[in-house]
Amino acid sequence: MNNSSKQTQTASGQFVPTDHTRVRRYPARAKYDRATVEAILDDAMVCHVGFVHDGHPFVIPTMYVRDGERILIHGSPLSRMLTEAAGGVALCVTVTLLDGVVLARAAFHHSMNYRSVAIVGRAHEVLEPAAKLAAMRALVERLIPGRWDEVRQPTPGEIAGTRVLEIPLVEASAKVRTGGPVDLAEDESFPVWAGVAPLALMPGAPIPDPGLAPGIELPDYVRRWRQAKNPAR
Amino acid sequence: MNNSSKQTQTASGQFVPTDHTRVRRYPARAKYDRATVEAILDDAMVCHVGFVHDGHPFVIPTMYVRDGERILIHGSPLSRMLTEAAGGVALCVTVTLLDGVVLARAAFHHSMNYRSVAIVGRAHEVLEPAAKLAAMRALVERLIPGRWDEVRQPTPGEIAGTRVLEIPLVEASAKVRTGGPVDLAEDESFPVWAGVAPLALMPGAPIPDPGLAPGIELPDYVRRWRQAKNPAR
Repeated sequence: MNNSSKQTQTASGQFVPTDHTRVRRYPARAKYDRATVEAILDDAMVCHVGFVHDGHPFVIPTMYVRDGERILIHGSPLSRMLTEAAGGVALCVTVTLLDGVVLARAAFHHSMNYRSVAIVGRAHEVLEPAAKLAAMRALVERLIPGRWDEVRQPTPGEIAGTRVLEIPLVEASAKVRTGGPVDLAEDESFPVWAGVAPLALMPGAPIPDPGLAPGIELPDYVRRWRQAKNPAR
Repeated sequence: MNNSSKQTQTASGQFVPTDHTRVRRYPARAKYDRATVEAILDDAMVCHVGFVHDGHPFVIPTMYVRDGERILIHGSPLSRMLTEAAGGVALCVTVTLLDGVVLARAAFHHSMNYRSVAIVGRAHEVLEPAAKLAAMRALVERLIPGRWDEVRQPTPGEIAGTRVLEIPLVEASAKVRTGGPVDLAEDESFPVWAGVAPLALMPGAPIPDPGLAPGIELPDYVRRWRQAKNPAR
C-alpha cells in the first residue's frame, strides 16, 4: 500500500538476489530494493521464522521489529525456536501482508493482493544488557508508538530473562501483487463483476483491563495509533 | 475470537501431540482439539509453508482452504515450493491470525493476542481432473462464498495448468492467546492504561475493475462477505 512512501535508500539500496531469495514464480512481482523491503517489514507485526531441526522444517510465528539493517525478535530463553536460532542455524524469516482478494472474470485468474518479504540468514544473540533493553524498547514501541515511556521499565531480572536475537537484513527479497484482476482478452466481456475486495488489519475499540484503576483514560498515543491504521474511523 | 463457535467434532476430536506439534512454550496456550484447529484454519486466508531444500529452510506464503480433514494449496506447476512439496518432502504449514496488541503495565508483559495452527506432514498431489476442479472450486469459494457459480469456469487446459496438493490434517496443534494483560500483582496499581487494542483483518470498499461493463453491479455475496467480516459497518 505504501510501498513507495519510504524513499530512504541506504548506500546499497538494492539487495542482491541469491539462490535463496530470488523470486522464481512471477518474477515481475519481485522487488529487491531496500525501500520496498523495509516498508513491508515496518507495516507488518508478525513474522514466520523457519528453521530446520533434525532434518524437519519448523515455522514459528513471532513478533519482530526492524531496527535499521536488522530485525530483532525476542522471547523466553526456554523457547525452542530462539534456542535453535541462537545456535546459528540457517533461518528463513517470512513476513506477509494480505491486501485484498482479486476477483477475476475467470475462476483460474482469481488471486490475492499481498506484500511479502523473505529474509535469509543466521541470527546473533544480543547479550549486552543495555543493548537488550534497547531492543525491548524497540519491540514495545513497534506495538504502539509512545508506549515505552509510560510503562513500568524492565528490571535487571526481566532483561536477563529475555532472549533477544538479531537477524541481519542482508539477504532479502520482497514479492508484491497489487492492482486489479488480469483476465484474458476474450473474457473481458464475461458478464460478472470483477475487481478487488481490499483487506487490511484494522484496530477495533480498545478494551480496558477490568482491573484498571478509575480515572485512567485511554492514552492519546493509542487513539493516534488506531486513527493512523484506520483513517476512515 | 470464535474459537468455541464450532463444535463439530470428528470421531477423533483431538490431535495427538507429537515431537513436531507439541507446544512447549506456554503449554497452557496449546489446543489440540480438532474444533479449535479447524476454526482457526477456516478464519485465516494465508498459510506459510515451510520445507527444507539442500539443508536450508524456506518459508513461502500461499492461500489455502481446509476441506474436511485436509488442506488444499495450489498454484503453477512451475512453483518451486509446490514442486518440492509434491515430491513428498516434510512440511510445516503454519497459519497465524493476529487478534490484538496486549498493553500491560510492565514493558516486560506486553504481548499479542493471536491464534495459530501448525500442521506437520507431507503433501500428496491431486491429479484427477475432476478432483482438481473441485479443489479449485473450494479455493475460490474460500475467497468469497458464492463466487464460483458466477465466473467463467476453468478450461481443461487451465485445470492441467494448475498443480493442486493436499496436506492431511493429522499432525496439528493450535496455540491461542486471548484476553487482557497479565501483570505482576505489585504492578496492578502502576498508573498507566492497560488493556487490549484489538486487531482484525477487515474488508474495505470493493474496487471495481476499470474495464467493467456498465450496468454490472456489485454482487450481493460480496456485500454479505464484507458485512460478515465487519459487522460494525
